[in-house]
Amino acid sequence: MSAATNRPTNRKVVLVKHVTGMVGPEHFRLENEPAREPGDGELLIKTDTLSIDAFIRTSLNDEEGLHTQVPVGGTIVALGVGHVVESHAPGFAPGDMVSGPLCAQTYATMPAAMFQKVDASLPPATYLGALGLTTGLTAFFGIRDVGQVKPGDTVLVSAAAGAVGCMAVQIAKNLGAKVIGLAGGPAKAAFLVETLGLDGAIDYKGEDVDARLKALAPDGIDVFFDNVGGELLDIALDNIRERGRVVICGAVSQYNDQKHVRGPSLYLRLAERYARMEGFTVMHFAAQYGEAFAQLAAWLAEGKLTMPEQVNEGIDSFPSALRQLFEGGNTGKMLVRP
Amino acid sequence: MSAATNRPTNRKVVLVKHVTGMVGPEHFRLENEPAREPGDGELLIKTDTLSIDAFIRTSLNDEEGLHTQVPVGGTIVALGVGHVVESHAPGFAPGDMVSGPLCAQTYATMPAAMFQKVDASLPPATYLGALGLTTGLTAFFGIRDVGQVKPGDTVLVSAAAGAVGCMAVQIAKNLGAKVIGLAGGPAKAAFLVETLGLDGAIDYKGEDVDARLKALAPDGIDVFFDNVGGELLDIALDNIRERGRVVICGAVSQYNDQKHVRGPSLYLRLAERYARMEGFTVMHFAAQYGEAFAQLAAWLAEGKLTMPEQVNEGIDSFPSALRQLFEGGNTGKMLVRP
Repeated sequence: MSAATNRPTNRKVVLVKHVTGMVGPEHFRLENEPAREPGDGELLIKTDTLSIDAFIRTSLNDEEGLHTQVPVGGTIVALGVGHVVESHAPGFAPGDMVSGPLCAQTYATMPAAMFQKVDASLPPATYLGALGLTTGLTAFFGIRDVGQVKPGDTVLVSAAAGAVGCMAVQIAKNLGAKVIGLAGGPAKAAFLVETLGLDGAIDYKGEDVDARLKALAPDGIDVFFDNVGGELLDIALDNIRERGRVVICGAVSQYNDQKHVRGPSLYLRLAERYARMEGFTVMHFAAQYGEAFAQLAAWLAEGKLTMPEQVNEGIDSFPSALRQLFEGGNTGKMLVRP
Repeated sequence: MSAATNRPTNRKVVLVKHVTGMVGPEHFRLENEPAREPGDGELLIKTDTLSIDAFIRTSLNDEEGLHTQVPVGGTIVALGVGHVVESHAPGFAPGDMVSGPLCAQTYATMPAAMFQKVDASLPPATYLGALGLTTGLTAFFGIRDVGQVKPGDTVLVSAAAGAVGCMAVQIAKNLGAKVIGLAGGPAKAAFLVETLGLDGAIDYKGEDVDARLKALAPDGIDVFFDNVGGELLDIALDNIRERGRVVICGAVSQYNDQKHVRGPSLYLRLAERYARMEGFTVMHFAAQYGEAFAQLAAWLAEGKLTMPEQVNEGIDSFPSALRQLFEGGNTGKMLVRP
């Protein structure tokens, strides 16, 4: 393929206006364009699977937030896995499976340096789930390094049926902890206990979280891995043990209005109990990606990690998939398969 | 002295009603009684100096708070230094100088086990200030162990002209840090720079704290030692560096209404910057009191620590001294000398 006329059509999701509050279809537009010819050092990649992550939402704010912003008219950011169609970069050949920031589009022309080749013997979605940067690796560093989970610890995880949460609870179990998950609705709570084998699960929408937590963990919790924030964070702080660790991975309950984030009013429990609250992003552990990847891949091979997937078909389903993530509709990893 | 008729009169401050909001004279009553005869293992101690600490306020709430509560009709808790008048305990003799929880009264009859003998060659107030549990030792563990202050770090301290703050800033300087203090009013700010030799001070009542902090520490702060909470905590979080440490020692701005504590709304900065917020009380470091005491005494002897004192004369001045502490009226250590 070298003539522009042979280039495939790229269909992409672009931002119509910055988002305040809940994200919806009015913020996006689908556009077609000829896929751009790769320049020197670039690849043309056909998207296989895209990952729907909470960070996408924060990149759509009209303010400086946790992540780099998408400009109006720009293609929505997203991580994904695809196959190389055309390579102008050494070390990459057509057919190679690669993982990286493909964005919400069916074809991407980007610098090869932004991608890494992955083992094509595993299903592509594995690299966005159990072995994904924003899921498996994030959970791994949060539980092992920030949370310093040890055998016998009691670990509480919020959004435990979500993609990061699913990984966090299983990793904590694999490290020998007693694990309790918080999830919205009885079906998710049942999934956590019956399918993932947790020691307990609390339906935060239907149950008295504090009372149930005190019943499940009468001596309190050693670690809280939090992706939600708000009231659940305060309840966890109220139940934190001496020398406990609160791991701040995200605050999905607060992303829709970042100018009025609810801070944890019980933060003084940290002083009473010589406890800590520590945050991180996966990028802070870049030097240890290889080690984490190897451990996660080993657990995966041993059947000690599983990631349920919820697949949305077609690039046009991207906006609704993103909205579902914030409506708590998913169990496990939310994906879009163009 | 053995006949009850010879016993001195104890004048004490008792609680009339639990406190909501600002503490005032209406919450206290002065009472006289004959000092109780010490039983087996007890001491009769004449109070020399009492320490006015923020924890006294939280012990007056009608709710479970940071500290043990004082019942209505009970004597107000306070640490102090006194001299043994009568000893029914081995190892203590009349004339010994002792430090411990004397409470707000002129004479205390209490178990000897609650007190420690101190070196009478230093002024009594030293044991409530530079070498005090709630001041020097608290600051020492907060700066050295929780804050992990290293040479070259930029350290911000709130309530820096208060008793704990005065110690925290000097200890951080002694450990080789660049130190900036927050205090209310230009006189206190000048004191921090001119008398304590800080690298900068911000009058939080009269200056734009964020702008001044960014000018004084353009690369951000490594450690924030906080005794105040509220808006200052959010400003500090906004200026925290990667791997920074926020040390939660107290939250004097929030003690008057513990049911509606303002949590730090910028706590997600912890995640963005792989930073931590860690709390403590001095009791968590009981095993290291001796080591800390020795270091502080050495610095004191070398002239590397100084503690300004504000002395209120007479036990009747106790209620107003406590109120002044929360009105920000003091520089250094607030004391009552009955």
